[in-house]
Amino acid sequence: MAQVKNKQVLLKHYVSGFPKESDLNIVDSTINLKLPEGSNDTVLVKNLYLSCDPYMRTLMSDPKASINPRAYVPQSPLTGYGVSKVVESGHKDYKEGDIVWGITNWEEYSLIPAAQIHFKIEHTDVPLSYYTGILGMPGMTAYAGFFEVGATKKGENVFVSAASGAVGQLVGQFAKLHGCYVVGSAGSKEKVDLLKNKFGYDEAINYKEEQDLNATLKRHFPEGIDVYFENVGGKTLDAVLLNMRLQGRIPVCGMISQYNLTQPEGVTNLAHIVYKRVRLQGFIVADYYHLYGKFLEFVLPHIREGKVVYVEDIAEGLEKGPEALVGIFSGKNVGKQVLVVARE
Amino acid sequence: MAQVKNKQVLLKHYVSGFPKESDLNIVDSTINLKLPEGSNDTVLVKNLYLSCDPYMRTLMSDPKASINPRAYVPQSPLTGYGVSKVVESGHKDYKEGDIVWGITNWEEYSLIPAAQIHFKIEHTDVPLSYYTGILGMPGMTAYAGFFEVGATKKGENVFVSAASGAVGQLVGQFAKLHGCYVVGSAGSKEKVDLLKNKFGYDEAINYKEEQDLNATLKRHFPEGIDVYFENVGGKTLDAVLLNMRLQGRIPVCGMISQYNLTQPEGVTNLAHIVYKRVRLQGFIVADYYHLYGKFLEFVLPHIREGKVVYVEDIAEGLEKGPEALVGIFSGKNVGKQVLVVARE
Repeated sequence: MAQVKNKQVLLKHYVSGFPKESDLNIVDSTINLKLPEGSNDTVLVKNLYLSCDPYMRTLMSDPKASINPRAYVPQSPLTGYGVSKVVESGHKDYKEGDIVWGITNWEEYSLIPAAQIHFKIEHTDVPLSYYTGILGMPGMTAYAGFFEVGATKKGENVFVSAASGAVGQLVGQFAKLHGCYVVGSAGSKEKVDLLKNKFGYDEAINYKEEQDLNATLKRHFPEGIDVYFENVGGKTLDAVLLNMRLQGRIPVCGMISQYNLTQPEGVTNLAHIVYKRVRLQGFIVADYYHLYGKFLEFVLPHIREGKVVYVEDIAEGLEKGPEALVGIFSGKNVGKQVLVVARE
Repeated sequence: MAQVKNKQVLLKHYVSGFPKESDLNIVDSTINLKLPEGSNDTVLVKNLYLSCDPYMRTLMSDPKASINPRAYVPQSPLTGYGVSKVVESGHKDYKEGDIVWGITNWEEYSLIPAAQIHFKIEHTDVPLSYYTGILGMPGMTAYAGFFEVGATKKGENVFVSAASGAVGQLVGQFAKLHGCYVVGSAGSKEKVDLLKNKFGYDEAINYKEEQDLNATLKRHFPEGIDVYFENVGGKTLDAVLLNMRLQGRIPVCGMISQYNLTQPEGVTNLAHIVYKRVRLQGFIVADYYHLYGKFLEFVLPHIREGKVVYVEDIAEGLEKGPEALVGIFSGKNVGKQVLVVARE
């Protein structure tokens, strides 16, 4: 096998504040398209679709000053969720031609430990890119956060922030399927239109135009919020705390508004959780992948029948990676941000 | 029956900021020591011991600007937990001479709905004042918060704030009985001495002398904190969030440091609850009184054998009420603040 060119996206250095495209480097490396001798448990893959996710920002910080104990290695390729095709396998569970999803590197070809593969993809009648979104980590996150951590009951009042994002657009649709009243917030008119007209939210808020989010939430939730699906943190959380209902739950999926701040915003209304007996619970999807089979059984029929839709924002080519990834922190993406490396 | 003098402590007006003795009035009223005709379900009691509790501050604020949806009525007596003796009963469950604990008024004699009585006191071989503390609401709060909400497992690492207070001193002792490592924080040298020498805390912190609480917690909890029993909020919570362990729990009993602030402090480190999957859960003791019988079975033998101790700070006479109540918000009390109205 010949050496082939292998384009990569590297982290140049630890980032503080908002990441910029110049914090990332695109380089041309090479790779031998053959497993090295004795590569048990290693798989050589061709990367097809890469996922741009908010948690990746927490890996760009110096780990000594980060909420995430792990971090990227400067001058090495980023890692993240992706859909890949197996070129050669050193593990019995995978063979050439299999399509898999899991953690891979931001490059054309990767040699990865088989343990980084989350699942072999069995259902290919849906777009493969969906396995970076609705059928991948964000889908499982929405499902686990809404049904398991939030323990949302039919008919409850639900509020979702980053409501048109990779996770939020699904939480809103799951809430409607579950008979809930659901309101979402997002940061542009285009996104607010999507919330109401595409995802079926009952009401939608453009948080960038809100003078008084507390008053707006009171108007939309006269009885209070039973479940707040938390993606953003900061000022939104503070206004929500004033509007939670007795025994309310706040599954905390992420706090994207805080990831780029060198001095995070203060949340001042936490004392409200005492009298309202609110549960605020951080979770990560890794604790819930044992439910993946159950999740697919739930969501695949809805996708096939068009009862659940998924909006993706597609960037073409690894060289668009820095722009696509940096863009999600200013909300440039509309829907799930996907980076196409190759389509097959 | 003659009219008798009935001294009362009234709220003069809604309070903002730290309460002052001058926000309360002591007045001499009168009361007829006989149940009015047709007073079914009402009980006339003589108040013996009144409880000074942090939550009472939340009832002094204008309810429109408070974390507590209820509030005292200006120009009326305060209400609160107390131990009382039944003078005359209009309810079948109580009779003259019974000793009861529950919600009563800050006055010598009260006419109260029987539903405000929480429990008739059966065990009188222990000090009756204990039913405002270790055997009353604070005791149940410590028990429910530590065992139920915190779901603390044997051997876990526990941190307690307001650690010598009415609730905290019990959480520390319950933690030791449960085989935990427990560290407490309090606001004076005298209290820190109590923590180590009286209540058995493994380590004790004087938060008023801490330059860097984060570093101190890291030193005391190299593996992190499994359960933080939250009584204070604000800066302490912020430092704790940096030191929580994976799957840690924070039962939120109260946030006394915030109750008197017109602008609460911001908590900036909430994003740490995501990767560490921390559960922050507000609770109120009212949801747990069904466990009171079980709690007494657990705690009474420990009291009788001297394995659990309880430190009270006793103020004598209703006229000392304003000073005693105001004092708990600056930490003047050492141990549970009790106000004696009459000893029998």
